[in-house]
Amino acid sequence: MQAEIIAVGTEILLGEIVNTNAQYVAKQLARFGIPSFYQTVVGDNPQRLTETIALAEKRSQLIILIGGLGPTPDDLTKQTLAAHLQKRLLADQVALEKLVTWQKQIKKEMPTNNLAQADYIEGSEVLANDVGLAIGCYLKTADHVYVVLPGPPREMLPMVDHQVVPRLAQLTGAKQVIVSKMLRFFGIGESLLADQLADLIGQQRNPTIATYLKGYEIGVRLTAYATDAQTAEAIIAPLAQEVRDRLSDFYTGEGEERTLVDEVVDLLKQRQLSVTAAESLTAGLFQAKLAEISGTSTVFSGGFVTYADAVKTQLLGIPAKTIERETVVSAEVARLMAESSRKQIDTEFGLGFTGVAGPDELAGQPAGTVFIALAQRDDDTQVQLFHLAGQRNEVRERAVASGFKMLYDRLIKM
Amino acid sequence: MQAEIIAVGTEILLGEIVNTNAQYVAKQLARFGIPSFYQTVVGDNPQRLTETIALAEKRSQLIILIGGLGPTPDDLTKQTLAAHLQKRLLADQVALEKLVTWQKQIKKEMPTNNLAQADYIEGSEVLANDVGLAIGCYLKTADHVYVVLPGPPREMLPMVDHQVVPRLAQLTGAKQVIVSKMLRFFGIGESLLADQLADLIGQQRNPTIATYLKGYEIGVRLTAYATDAQTAEAIIAPLAQEVRDRLSDFYTGEGEERTLVDEVVDLLKQRQLSVTAAESLTAGLFQAKLAEISGTSTVFSGGFVTYADAVKTQLLGIPAKTIERETVVSAEVARLMAESSRKQIDTEFGLGFTGVAGPDELAGQPAGTVFIALAQRDDDTQVQLFHLAGQRNEVRERAVASGFKMLYDRLIKM
Repeated sequence: MQAEIIAVGTEILLGEIVNTNAQYVAKQLARFGIPSFYQTVVGDNPQRLTETIALAEKRSQLIILIGGLGPTPDDLTKQTLAAHLQKRLLADQVALEKLVTWQKQIKKEMPTNNLAQADYIEGSEVLANDVGLAIGCYLKTADHVYVVLPGPPREMLPMVDHQVVPRLAQLTGAKQVIVSKMLRFFGIGESLLADQLADLIGQQRNPTIATYLKGYEIGVRLTAYATDAQTAEAIIAPLAQEVRDRLSDFYTGEGEERTLVDEVVDLLKQRQLSVTAAESLTAGLFQAKLAEISGTSTVFSGGFVTYADAVKTQLLGIPAKTIERETVVSAEVARLMAESSRKQIDTEFGLGFTGVAGPDELAGQPAGTVFIALAQRDDDTQVQLFHLAGQRNEVRERAVASGFKMLYDRLIKM
Repeated sequence: MQAEIIAVGTEILLGEIVNTNAQYVAKQLARFGIPSFYQTVVGDNPQRLTETIALAEKRSQLIILIGGLGPTPDDLTKQTLAAHLQKRLLADQVALEKLVTWQKQIKKEMPTNNLAQADYIEGSEVLANDVGLAIGCYLKTADHVYVVLPGPPREMLPMVDHQVVPRLAQLTGAKQVIVSKMLRFFGIGESLLADQLADLIGQQRNPTIATYLKGYEIGVRLTAYATDAQTAEAIIAPLAQEVRDRLSDFYTGEGEERTLVDEVVDLLKQRQLSVTAAESLTAGLFQAKLAEISGTSTVFSGGFVTYADAVKTQLLGIPAKTIERETVVSAEVARLMAESSRKQIDTEFGLGFTGVAGPDELAGQPAGTVFIALAQRDDDTQVQLFHLAGQRNEVRERAVASGFKMLYDRLIKM
């Protein structure tokens, strides 16, 4: 069996977006050893798309079409493939109900084009869209297998992972089970981390080992192939232990979809402890990240955004004289921010963030200089100085991540 | 003239690298208004590459081949194209000398394959490689123009910028200037917006008109071609006016790289007005977005994250009885949040955000229900109810964007 990927979208031809979808799907094909000799990009044009499909049918048995499932009139991939195969389009009831619910939620009128997102090609299996509204299709004919996927990567990726990969496994008769484990680390650069694991990476076979940037964390993915899941897990276990041991200071947990923030919120919930913050350069970003996690309200009830000196004095009672003497970018101000916010909201932990986001320097300190303080009830306050790299908003994001790491390190030792 | 990009490389088919080269070249083609209906990726295989070139010759006049110029035996792009066109390969003296110098420097023996990097196709103009060793070619035949480029982006990009772009300008007789204008809108779905502009989109030629998702805003890009910039701008102006008029309620400004937050911060600065917020479901995200803009400190000094009811009472003085009576997701609580925060920080504007991020309902209201209040010094407080679509963090992001839109609408009328 040979495969061929067709990305549909005028925006790719105009160079407005990069065709990362093709790479993602190509990787999955490679994983199953399915040869792929061509990738094509074609615009949202029924005639040229039909010609492209007809050419692909001559060269390949597995044809994967990506994009053009959206609600606008130029999204025509399903319609074009259906017409080419002389099959009808049918409405999927589940997807249609989801569209109706969505319409109710936003209380706006829905153009009829929107309904096409719930269509599937007669005879195909529906690939549900867990993230968006446009469903995909998986269609077997006498000579070909067609897979139709949505264009937005955040919709396409989970559809591939959960619905296409198992079907590829079945197609190729891969009785092989693949098990992956993602270990996450924070506070070490990717190249330094790779250096620490150089020998393991060099001799990899099964399990394989690969590093990834995951936001401000670095992921190390271990993947094993075996006849069953238990065997695969047994192959991974000792290597996972070795990797964790070598990088224990930077370890932030396990899991592909989780982040350091998930770990911190879960630890706080388990230990029934609460947290607040007073934020200067990060201006609410730490607290906003906490609230990204559903159910945070049991451990977080609110806090302070104290961007200007005067507001630090007004809301946190930090004496103007102290700010003047120590400067606003100082360990002392960070400490007082953490302690005052903790005391006022009456939480177990309080964090204080003060520093220079940039691009200009502040209080005589260069951009990237950040003090983060962690106050705890009946305990000493810990203050750490960071020199963070990057542009203004990278510095702010890294500062927030560093705050979460300080809290994580405290929590796992409790 | 139509163009077509062929990327050559098995590593792309295996998903090991993303085809960013195609995007870069596609952008240049779009810049010159050269239509491109196909992009193809093919492996380092002479037979399949020849078939791909032959197909491209039927569809397009300008054929751009990228990759496969390196020193390894599977780099065969120039050889394959030369054979297909029945032309000889010749060695470029400058490139050859560079190879010899390089060999001396690294003090290693040079496989003869390396020498092929200095080859060009008989009759073509040499495209010098300022960064690497493999030269490109620019070849005009009776029916076609072929451009052959190296695969590594750091070699390809400068070659395109300095040697291909001037030739494209010559080819298209582009005394033509291309001018684009990006209009931005918020608060309307992309498909509804496209409906409003359907007749304009249908009859587009020069200027062209296209819609884009830009975060939570929608961009409408108008692009005109003319002999000079002034003429192009004159062609765009009436259409831009028409688009703005039709969608005036949703208009949020102009500019490719700007966002609604930039507009709001600039308007506040121009009018020397300040803002604060009290945030419940958004938990600091509105304030964190304000602080993304460098120099925000002149208009923003801090505010409140009041996630739990008790903290709304403690920090904002909202009576517990009011929260109980009205429920926390209510116009009244949003109003009190906005007014109290404004009064305490003594700013011109105060925003209050309360609502249901989801996934669960809250205070009897479904996920997506959000009240946003805008208080202004010596003025009535405006409260708006939103029904926002999406998952938890989309609801939170959309709520923040909606708050910025309310503030923007107030500011432009001042």
